[in-house]
Amino acid sequence: MSKPTILVTNDDGITANGIHALVEAMREIGHVIVVAPDSPQSGMGHAITIHNPLRLHKVDVFKGIDAWQCSGTPVDCVKLAVNKILNRKPDICVSGINHGSNSSINVIYSGTMSAAMEGAIEGIPSIGFSLLNYKFDADFSAARHFAGVVTRAVLQGGPWRELLLNVNIPYLPLNEMKGIKICRQAMAKWKEEFDERLDPAQQKYYWLTGKFINPDLGEDTDEWALANGYVSVVPVEFDFTAHHAIPVLNKLQWNA
Amino acid sequence: MSKPTILVTNDDGITANGIHALVEAMREIGHVIVVAPDSPQSGMGHAITIHNPLRLHKVDVFKGIDAWQCSGTPVDCVKLAVNKILNRKPDICVSGINHGSNSSINVIYSGTMSAAMEGAIEGIPSIGFSLLNYKFDADFSAARHFAGVVTRAVLQGGPWRELLLNVNIPYLPLNEMKGIKICRQAMAKWKEEFDERLDPAQQKYYWLTGKFINPDLGEDTDEWALANGYVSVVPVEFDFTAHHAIPVLNKLQWNA
Repeated sequence: MSKPTILVTNDDGITANGIHALVEAMREIGHVIVVAPDSPQSGMGHAITIHNPLRLHKVDVFKGIDAWQCSGTPVDCVKLAVNKILNRKPDICVSGINHGSNSSINVIYSGTMSAAMEGAIEGIPSIGFSLLNYKFDADFSAARHFAGVVTRAVLQGGPWRELLLNVNIPYLPLNEMKGIKICRQAMAKWKEEFDERLDPAQQKYYWLTGKFINPDLGEDTDEWALANGYVSVVPVEFDFTAHHAIPVLNKLQWNA
Repeated sequence: MSKPTILVTNDDGITANGIHALVEAMREIGHVIVVAPDSPQSGMGHAITIHNPLRLHKVDVFKGIDAWQCSGTPVDCVKLAVNKILNRKPDICVSGINHGSNSSINVIYSGTMSAAMEGAIEGIPSIGFSLLNYKFDADFSAARHFAGVVTRAVLQGGPWRELLLNVNIPYLPLNEMKGIKICRQAMAKWKEEFDERLDPAQQKYYWLTGKFINPDLGEDTDEWALANGYVSVVPVEFDFTAHHAIPVLNKLQWNA
């Protein structure tokens, strides 16, 4: 394969350390183009911008790499990159490296994974990378290594149709990593708690917070892999049909 | 079953005609509580609000019904309803009736369906309803009828674990509807187009637009059902693992 064209995006914004680590990993593999949000978009899920226009500005923040910042969501970035900047599909789309985990149920809240999902819907093999550390100044060196490893493996395995991977990386030094494990999404969830406060005008407001609860003890899950020092790789689907439920529902009485 | 408690939300905002039609349908079935966004949230996907605090205000917009408007996304509304207002799980969560289709791949962009998905993740049987008409003043009378029919069927089929339905309703008079059909999500997608314009300062901006492309001709899909006058009911999954891809990925060379 000649040098692949690699579209890089994220949800923490174009100035985040995580996307800089990802660009460094990708420039060793192919021709890199960056289109990323101009501000943090964590928790945006698969949001798109339909009630506001979008802005796109070329910026010089990655040495020698063509990069644009976009006023929209991570999904908007992928749509604009393919349709207005590249005017064709890149060979692969990578998103991240996210500051914080997107394992298990977090896949559905994650802007990082939504950008990758949008790539996959467009027919581009796509990977979201996340590091299990929320800090702005986290050390991305081991994560950067594994981003390269996974991307190379995917490029060698192609051509793919509809490949979408959710890759989470434990926050460990490289020599303590056990390797890569293909997993399923753990059926875990957040137990919400709202931190209730009063503003200076004595009006109530709430901060969303919560605890992560994992009752799924399977050793084939991403949570197990991460807790045991593995990089977790979960293949992700965007046919959301619960096929097993169709016969059950057909037995119901649908009196119209 | 005694009178069920029904949580109603949407993504078009608490003043939309669609949620008023849904409340009218639900008040014939159970005890209704409304928690809905204070402004339109279309296309918000599974967004949550983590960088801003949330506001919640009791409002009197549905005669005799306890209702709150929330500054957050549809998903935030469900989280706040369960954790701060009801302090327990309702018997069912219904979202909509959306002004516009959420069939096929639209399930992933839809705030309506994300609210319902959040309900299902919490273990509440949840249904998103959408009418195939985007107009603010669309006629919701047939949709309102089917919202009642589907909700009653689900309540009679219970107790459910993890039930999540994506219900789309053709824009037809009631007497032209063919009935209800259980379907799978059609594997269709949007072909984006960006409408490029200049603002008064001669700076470029873009409006997201596009064409819906459906290469999936299966007669078991939601698109087929809707095109043929049926209400489509797609059971939806929130284990996004592409289980079939796990053995394929395990054959790759993962050189770490």
